[in-house]
Order: sequence, then C-alpha cells, then structure tokens
Amino acid sequence: MEQLDIKTHGEGFINLTPTINSWLAQNEITNGVLHITALHTSCSLTINENADPKVLEDLSSYMKALVPEEGFKSISGNGSSFNYKHSDEGPDDMPAHIRTALTCSNLSLSINSGRLLLGTWQAVYLWEHRSRRQFRKINLHAIGEM
Amino acid sequence: MEQLDIKTHGEGFINLTPTINSWLAQNEITNGVLHITALHTSCSLTINENADPKVLEDLSSYMKALVPEEGFKSISGNGSSFNYKHSDEGPDDMPAHIRTALTCSNLSLSINSGRLLLGTWQAVYLWEHRSRRQFRKINLHAIGEM
Amino acid sequence: MEQLDIKTHGEGFINLTPTINSWLAQNEITNGVLHITALHTSCSLTINENADPKVLEDLSSYMKALVPEEGFKSISGNGSSFNYKHSDEGPDDMPAHIRTALTCSNLSLSINSGRLLLGTWQAVYLWEHRSRRQFRKINLHAIGEM
Repeated sequence: MEQLDIKTHGEGFINLTPTINSWLAQNEITNGVLHITALHTSCSLTINENADPKVLEDLSSYMKALVPEEGFKSISGNGSSFNYKHSDEGPDDMPAHIRTALTCSNLSLSINSGRLLLGTWQAVYLWEHRSRRQFRKINLHAIGEM
Repeated sequence: MEQLDIKTHGEGFINLTPTINSWLAQNEITNGVLHITALHTSCSLTINENADPKVLEDLSSYMKALVPEEGFKSISGNGSSFNYKHSDEGPDDMPAHIRTALTCSNLSLSINSGRLLLGTWQAVYLWEHRSRRQFRKINLHAIGEM
Repeated sequence: MEQLDIKTHGEGFINLTPTINSWLAQNEITNGVLHITALHTSCSLTINENADPKVLEDLSSYMKALVPEEGFKSISGNGSSFNYKHSDEGPDDMPAHIRTALTCSNLSLSINSGRLLLGTWQAVYLWEHRSRRQFRKINLHAIGEM
C-alpha cells in the first residue's frame, strides 16, 4: 500500500495509467487486484477514453453545465432555483463536492502480467474538479490472487 | 463478512464511518481491504465531506433538483418532458432508483491499523433516497493483504 | 480471471446476474469477492431493481434526457448551450461516454455459497449506452477470503 502524490492544474484530467503501471513494475506486482482511492472529496477517479482528446473536453463542458458554479435549477421545469449554502471555500468548492458524488472516488482493477487490465480505449484519470491547482493523494493497495 | 442493520430517517445522510471502525475493532481486522455494499436499489454509499454540514444540505438540494419527484425535462432544451412510469410504490421511489444509479452502491476501501483509510475530510455515508424511514442492510466483507 | 463476451442490442439493460452465477458455479468459486469490470468507455455496470421492468424503462428515459444526443444546456438557467465536439463516431458516442462517467464501470461484490451476494431486489446489469448493438467484454476476477 502506498500513496501517490499528484499535482493537478485546475479543473481537468490527469492520466494516471502510466504512473500506476510504473508503480506496479517498481513493486514487482504481477497479478491481483489494485484498489485505487482518491483521498479527497473534490476530485474523482474515472475511466474514460484515451484516444480523441475532444472526449475529455466534452466531459469537462458537460460537467460544468450539469453542476454549475452559479447555482442550479430543478430539471422538473417547475422553475425552482437554488444557490449553494456552502460557499466559504470559494464558488468552485461545492460544485466540486457534487461532481465527486456523481462520479467515483474508488476503482478496483485487475492487474495482469504486471499492468492494469484495461480495455483498448480505457485509461484511468484523476478528474480534478477544483478550479485551481491542488496536491492530491491517491491510495494504491494491491491484493493477491486466490 | 457481516451485514449491518441501519435505520434511516427519510432522505439524507448517515455517517457510517464510526460504525464501520467499531466493527473492524470488534473483529480485530487490522489490515486489508473492506468491501462495503448497500443491498438496496434506492439508497447509496457515498464518500463526502464530514466537516461543514452545509455540504450535505447542498448535496441533498442538488440531487432533488437533478432527479425531481414530479418528472423531468430534457436538458437539451428541446422542451421534451417526462413522467415516471414506475409509480406504484410512491412518487419518491423511481427518483430514488435513479439517484442510486447516479451514485454508488459499492465501495472498496483500505483498512490501515484497524481503521478505514480515508482522507482528512472524508467520511463514508449511507445516502437514503426514499422520503420515509427504512431499514437498510449494509454488507461488510474484509479481504486480507498480499 | 476471465472475460465474458456479451452481445448488446442497442441502448438498454442486460441482466448479467445469471451469467455471473453460472460462471461462479463452473469455476467452483464459493466464497470471496468478485471484481466485475466493463472494459469499455461507452457502457456501464449498474445495480438496480429486477422486479418491475418499468424501473429500467424510466432509467433509460431519464438518462436520455440528462445526457441528450442533440447537445445540452447549463442547468444554472443562464441560457448557455453546448454541442459535442467529439462527433466522429456518431451522435450517440459522446453521450455514451458521459453516461459511462456518471455511472460505474466497476463493481466488487461478495460471493456467498457460490452466488453473488445481492439484496432481494438487486440485479447486476450491463447498461449499453450506444444506440446500435455492440460486443462487450466484461472482466470477472475472484479473490479469496481472509
């Protein structure tokens, strides 16, 4: 078990797959399951496409529209609108908590021949939801096979 | 492996972290991974902030606006609106299933020195999505280290 | 560890529970944890209700309204609207990536007496988000008990 220190650069995605594969190689872990957890409440772990970078741009735009900084309206169309009560840590903080709740903090992936087992187009991303750079801790915990 | 019985009090959050840490202590489980699963389709497990209670209030308000009881409109802005077909179990039931699908039923967290390994501001919550109190079963399953 | 090949039939749900339980029986796996991962970025794994089929119909309708093919508007009500930049693979592809990010690709469930441990109303579904049929690989990886 070890914690990676990852520096983020504002809202957006950091591909963790090469870092994780290097960690597996350094620790000579070849088979089992790797549990990956973001130890924060305003960033996520997500698996998504690693080919066309426009996929990540669209994901960002969508999330900003779904969980806007300026408050939100009910999608029932009844006109109710809401402002965030938790605003002490800046206008980007509460949206970041909600974006975290709507995605994942925790992945459990197979390790096969010393590498994360992923589909052809998959990569594991740290999704920073805060607007400024942060230092993030990602916990890696490998469990061996039956 | 054991199932916790948790009584909820309508829509909202119950901090499971102290209960889980007590369970680990009682069972003398000091290191490994704990798999936590909500055995229901209308409540979730979520990791979020345990400091300012307004974070949880905002999460509740947001989720009620995103998955309203009275039906929903497409966020394309094309004007399409929808009512829930599944309504036999009350107006809060289908929204609760959707809120569950948009969050998580399942977490796998490291156990370190007899406690859940969490970030400074993280706690594990049972998020009840139904409007009345319920009895919920949460499955705990510990797996040892490599 | 093994990969299931699942054929989907356009957007919708395929109940994987019987297939997974058969796989556990064939491999004589009676206790432990099963890690299930969809090796794709445009379909999800979800646990939801297996009783009234209208629940799954409402889930589909909701997701299509939340992540529409024709673009989306901010729910802040500020009028901003967006089109997807990633459109080379058809109008259903980018929404499928977003729907995947808002749900789960990865579940870790207890195996008890040779079967997945699920609540009474729970089933594990592959949720296809693309509009045409696809061939999907689902990774199953069992880990034994402490």
